[in-house]
Amino acid sequence: MNSFGNFFRLSTWGESHGASIGAVVDGCPAGLELSAEDIQRELDLRKPGQSTVSSPRREQDRVEILSGVFEGRTLGSPIALMLRNRGQRSGDYEPLADLYRPGHADFTYQMKYGRRDPRGGGRSSGRETAARVAGGAIARKLLASRGIRVLAFARRIGEVALEDREVEALFTAEPAPEELETLRRSIYESPVRCPVADRAEAMREAVERVAAEQDSLGGIVEARAFGAPAGLGEPVFGKLGALIGQAVLSVGAVKGVEFGGGFALAAMRGSAANDPFTRNARGEVVPASNRGGGMAGGISTGLPIVCRVAVKPASSIGAAQETVDARGRPVRLSVQGRHDPCIVPRVVPVIEHMINLVLVDLLLAHMARSSFFKL
Amino acid sequence: MNSFGNFFRLSTWGESHGASIGAVVDGCPAGLELSAEDIQRELDLRKPGQSTVSSPRREQDRVEILSGVFEGRTLGSPIALMLRNRGQRSGDYEPLADLYRPGHADFTYQMKYGRRDPRGGGRSSGRETAARVAGGAIARKLLASRGIRVLAFARRIGEVALEDREVEALFTAEPAPEELETLRRSIYESPVRCPVADRAEAMREAVERVAAEQDSLGGIVEARAFGAPAGLGEPVFGKLGALIGQAVLSVGAVKGVEFGGGFALAAMRGSAANDPFTRNARGEVVPASNRGGGMAGGISTGLPIVCRVAVKPASSIGAAQETVDARGRPVRLSVQGRHDPCIVPRVVPVIEHMINLVLVDLLLAHMARSSFFKL
Amino acid sequence: MNSFGNFFRLSTWGESHGASIGAVVDGCPAGLELSAEDIQRELDLRKPGQSTVSSPRREQDRVEILSGVFEGRTLGSPIALMLRNRGQRSGDYEPLADLYRPGHADFTYQMKYGRRDPRGGGRSSGRETAARVAGGAIARKLLASRGIRVLAFARRIGEVALEDREVEALFTAEPAPEELETLRRSIYESPVRCPVADRAEAMREAVERVAAEQDSLGGIVEARAFGAPAGLGEPVFGKLGALIGQAVLSVGAVKGVEFGGGFALAAMRGSAANDPFTRNARGEVVPASNRGGGMAGGISTGLPIVCRVAVKPASSIGAAQETVDARGRPVRLSVQGRHDPCIVPRVVPVIEHMINLVLVDLLLAHMARSSFFKL
Amino acid sequence: MNSFGNFFRLSTWGESHGASIGAVVDGCPAGLELSAEDIQRELDLRKPGQSTVSSPRREQDRVEILSGVFEGRTLGSPIALMLRNRGQRSGDYEPLADLYRPGHADFTYQMKYGRRDPRGGGRSSGRETAARVAGGAIARKLLASRGIRVLAFARRIGEVALEDREVEALFTAEPAPEELETLRRSIYESPVRCPVADRAEAMREAVERVAAEQDSLGGIVEARAFGAPAGLGEPVFGKLGALIGQAVLSVGAVKGVEFGGGFALAAMRGSAANDPFTRNARGEVVPASNRGGGMAGGISTGLPIVCRVAVKPASSIGAAQETVDARGRPVRLSVQGRHDPCIVPRVVPVIEHMINLVLVDLLLAHMARSSFFKL
Repeated sequence: MNSFGNFFRLSTWGESHGASIGAVVDGCPAGLELSAEDIQRELDLRKPGQSTVSSPRREQDRVEILSGVFEGRTLGSPIALMLRNRGQRSGDYEPLADLYRPGHADFTYQMKYGRRDPRGGGRSSGRETAARVAGGAIARKLLASRGIRVLAFARRIGEVALEDREVEALFTAEPAPEELETLRRSIYESPVRCPVADRAEAMREAVERVAAEQDSLGGIVEARAFGAPAGLGEPVFGKLGALIGQAVLSVGAVKGVEFGGGFALAAMRGSAANDPFTRNARGEVVPASNRGGGMAGGISTGLPIVCRVAVKPASSIGAAQETVDARGRPVRLSVQGRHDPCIVPRVVPVIEHMINLVLVDLLLAHMARSSFFKL
Repeated sequence: MNSFGNFFRLSTWGESHGASIGAVVDGCPAGLELSAEDIQRELDLRKPGQSTVSSPRREQDRVEILSGVFEGRTLGSPIALMLRNRGQRSGDYEPLADLYRPGHADFTYQMKYGRRDPRGGGRSSGRETAARVAGGAIARKLLASRGIRVLAFARRIGEVALEDREVEALFTAEPAPEELETLRRSIYESPVRCPVADRAEAMREAVERVAAEQDSLGGIVEARAFGAPAGLGEPVFGKLGALIGQAVLSVGAVKGVEFGGGFALAAMRGSAANDPFTRNARGEVVPASNRGGGMAGGISTGLPIVCRVAVKPASSIGAAQETVDARGRPVRLSVQGRHDPCIVPRVVPVIEHMINLVLVDLLLAHMARSSFFKL
Repeated sequence: MNSFGNFFRLSTWGESHGASIGAVVDGCPAGLELSAEDIQRELDLRKPGQSTVSSPRREQDRVEILSGVFEGRTLGSPIALMLRNRGQRSGDYEPLADLYRPGHADFTYQMKYGRRDPRGGGRSSGRETAARVAGGAIARKLLASRGIRVLAFARRIGEVALEDREVEALFTAEPAPEELETLRRSIYESPVRCPVADRAEAMREAVERVAAEQDSLGGIVEARAFGAPAGLGEPVFGKLGALIGQAVLSVGAVKGVEFGGGFALAAMRGSAANDPFTRNARGEVVPASNRGGGMAGGISTGLPIVCRVAVKPASSIGAAQETVDARGRPVRLSVQGRHDPCIVPRVVPVIEHMINLVLVDLLLAHMARSSFFKL
Repeated sequence: MNSFGNFFRLSTWGESHGASIGAVVDGCPAGLELSAEDIQRELDLRKPGQSTVSSPRREQDRVEILSGVFEGRTLGSPIALMLRNRGQRSGDYEPLADLYRPGHADFTYQMKYGRRDPRGGGRSSGRETAARVAGGAIARKLLASRGIRVLAFARRIGEVALEDREVEALFTAEPAPEELETLRRSIYESPVRCPVADRAEAMREAVERVAAEQDSLGGIVEARAFGAPAGLGEPVFGKLGALIGQAVLSVGAVKGVEFGGGFALAAMRGSAANDPFTRNARGEVVPASNRGGGMAGGISTGLPIVCRVAVKPASSIGAAQETVDARGRPVRLSVQGRHDPCIVPRVVPVIEHMINLVLVDLLLAHMARSSFFKL
């Protein structure tokens, strides 16, 4: 189904070249200040056509709030958001109707549904994530009101990767909200969404190089959430990592996710991997290290939540690919038109907002039960 | 919540040292032949105490089917399964009540609930996964009736890892069910659940070495599903990879998951990462390669589903750890008692069954809609 | 939450005087022929302003299909439907902001959310049901493709009621689809939605009489579903009657529901209330009578499903009412403007479509499981 | 599916003559004091064999708490409850395997699942409601901690019914918790579960009379909930009345439900049916009357919630019934054995607990969202 979340539920709809795409957010508490501009700001961070590393195609996404807000505040009723599909050139899609583009969902949609909208990938288009960002923008505002902030950035593009020490240097021990906002701005000022200037420059060059060769590059997005209280997550199937995992793996090109030490823990010993406890400056007992990535037993520890997401290289490439068409006839395919040589920069805000959606859902669940009895 | 799945729903309950643990399976079609022995066989593959690499503790898990089966076949009503907790030594748990074991969920449960069952980890114990295996055994039978089979094995333990060519050599192009059953047997005959004999031996030695040093090791589990038809998975938030991701990340020590090329795709180019199409021997159009891990756009392609899961080293170690107790007083902790120096072998069947659960749920969803109109 | 159904899920959004209202249908099988006209036809049956018994207000509901349909057939993706709010006169709503209209939801929304949209009732307006009808129109088409048809009509308005024999005379033993379509047309040709001409005339007069007195009338809607196979419904909490019950009780003015013999069974004996079995002309074993209303043990029997719904008199009346405002100051309220003296005729199609939604959801659930093993 | 509720979810399992029946409660806040005795007390109020009006069959239901409670308080993990099936005489059920008892679910289960457990009705047995009562007992304790109490009683059996004034005389304007507990005790001291002594006596006689004639009687159960705050219920599909409606209609013999004025509102005028507002002694604005049954627009008003439920006469009767067997052969059936001539008294606690389950679920949902922003 096309919904995510239990207490704060985002549903998205729309095909890439239909009349419009949109989202419905159900379960947002009443009383949140919310304007179209709050959402537009987040959409603007996602849209393509912003630099040489992304498609020159222009999606002039103007969000309209159709319901759920009255006199600038949420009503508690569903918030319907719509983005008209403008600037899409459907053109003659007949040739595509018979073609399964390598790496795309054309084939599997055809197998599943017996039919599909071949224009721009239809429902499987990355454009659907604009609706997620719109919904995530609301989650972000709710979280901010509780001091919780999620940041994502390009950790790696092709061969260019941030080292651990470079990442750690970005964050102070307990970063203040303003610090995080400043860092976020610097991320989005970078065309590749990397806050370390020289690495960002190297990433940009790497993308331009493969673009010139009609090819594409993959990468890794890292996300961190600050300010989440201990206690979020449901301990068995709804573990914090399991829900974030589902959330980020539901983004098109994502092929892997890891938390804290992640795959590197596979080669480690317990004595090195465990997080012991200590007392912090306020006298509270807290984990002394964060190899668990801000979670233990599926529940947040109160330390930053840390995850990394593997993004495959963009499937649409200009270079020729040998394949067969829907009838099995050999085809030499060279994807024409506007496409991103590397989608990592565009995946960054989507990952950020998927994590916002998970956290706000868990926060609401937690508030219901933890407030019942004095703990 | 403690339930997984929409159409075939597994709910588990129970604390490690309570009276019993159990599972309820809701949504199983009526008419499946099912006996306690079918489930017991799977539980026996998971239980500890089977070799030097796992805890000498004996869980004599005898499953009882309490409902949902009549005269050897399922009724369509909920199937309740119970495993009594025998052979648990609760002993004096007072010392534990004040202690947050590093790497365990003691701290986060306390933060979330304000209280916890300190005996053997309570609800957060790995023992809960026995209930998942019991439910997964039913999913496995349903899938087998449709020619779908899931296999998992230890891909890596500590520094010892199977190479790609070793893994590929295990499987023929379109393995017959009997081949897969034979391979599965060979996996479970290995104490480390690795079907490549010399690697298995090296893994075993590695585990014994760290065990002697009172330490533990992590690893990687790989799982493959064969026979799943094209068309499973819901294209947006319920992508096949997203649901498998949630499923495997809901297992205690799992800290990462990847599909097909996974994290390695981050450093690849699109021209190398894409799966083009071809015609198979039966004249059907199918993907010519499987870097996508059996899925594209969140939907199964009909090729084997491939995923790998990072398992952290076991948290309970005999080596001393410096930490603080629940009141913040410094403690030098050395976990005594029976525990696994490497839980990878025991995670193997759990991963296998979590994937069984995902696939049967998606298969039922698919059957409802795909049969409505002739596609 | 604002969603209904598990397999075929309708979500609605929108306030009465916002930009638009709408619905998202998720889970519709791919391949259904669907046009805006199919939906418009059902909306036209619901809209007000059609006779002296309903409000002279004109809702020019033009539905737009925004997604999920391509080249005249459903894609399997979410179908987003939108109706712009035209012809609403918001005017000066300040006076209403401080007023809790008797019988309306103003007070409870304020208590629940701390705020509300006072224009035309906001989310609590009957206008929301237009979005349900739009979604129900799709359910109706799916059901029709399987030979299932739901009919609703005014059984009673004020003191004027159809007798049992008059209702039974409307239906042959196994009515053909065309017969039912003809009957349905005759229902909607009646301004009060009653297919028995003289009763319909008496109902119309009763409504006009109370309207002249600035008052309103309640009534009973009866609904019958034909062609549903035996086996629909989940036997415990998801009983067929329980789900239809929830569905119809979720319609604004509905205050009661009964199935088959209903409340009259309370005064009967088992020997008279039971439905024994017989063989029909085709030699099949079927219930010999239908006091159970087409269900037994929560599951459809294959006979017509029969339910009746109590509709309270419209809350908005011109006659003066003594009440207090939101600050507790005494007010003598006389609701001005366009409102229906009896909403029974407008509730008729909503009830019909809510039952369509229940049946299509159960049908999909049933198809998934019953096709697994040959029964 | 066999689960009810979203935040506080009850799942039941078990066949009448299987090894045991049970329930799992998921989502109960941690910290509630809970013992087996708390649950046993409620079960004892439901069990048969307590008087001449109910079956002499003895169900010695001893509940066992298998999980979720530690040192007398809930842990926040699932609470598994089990009742062993003792004192059931399965005997020779072969004759039943071929028979569809009139009024029972034998036929529909066979149609749905292709098979069934013929012993005592299997899953469709009223015995399943013992598991609901066990779960409802936990809901009841949670509600009591917030000052919310639900009462149910026999309002009518056969021709004997309480008049409105008799019912109103049972309750003071704002009954204190102790008053309600006293009234509840008097209800359960009556064999027919009616707190008005002379009516109760007349009901008892009516039941004995039909029992002597090998027949059965139906009736009406009324339930009232006190102390629920304004604001419970979700305004569209999850209206308070819709959820209570689903809950009570999911009980076996229930064929109708109404709220407040209910079906009588169908013949009323708006001027008489509306609830205007007034100020109470504490200066708060509240509804001045309660024809809406404690709800408006699907949300609780803070006044008592009032509903009535139609219960059909028990299906099992000793009197001969002409029917056909599963193969269509004519049978003259006279149900032998222990059965209730009137199940109204046994439905009373089940209705009470189903409403408890609805209210605790809505209360938890409400606490999550209403506490987010200061309203």
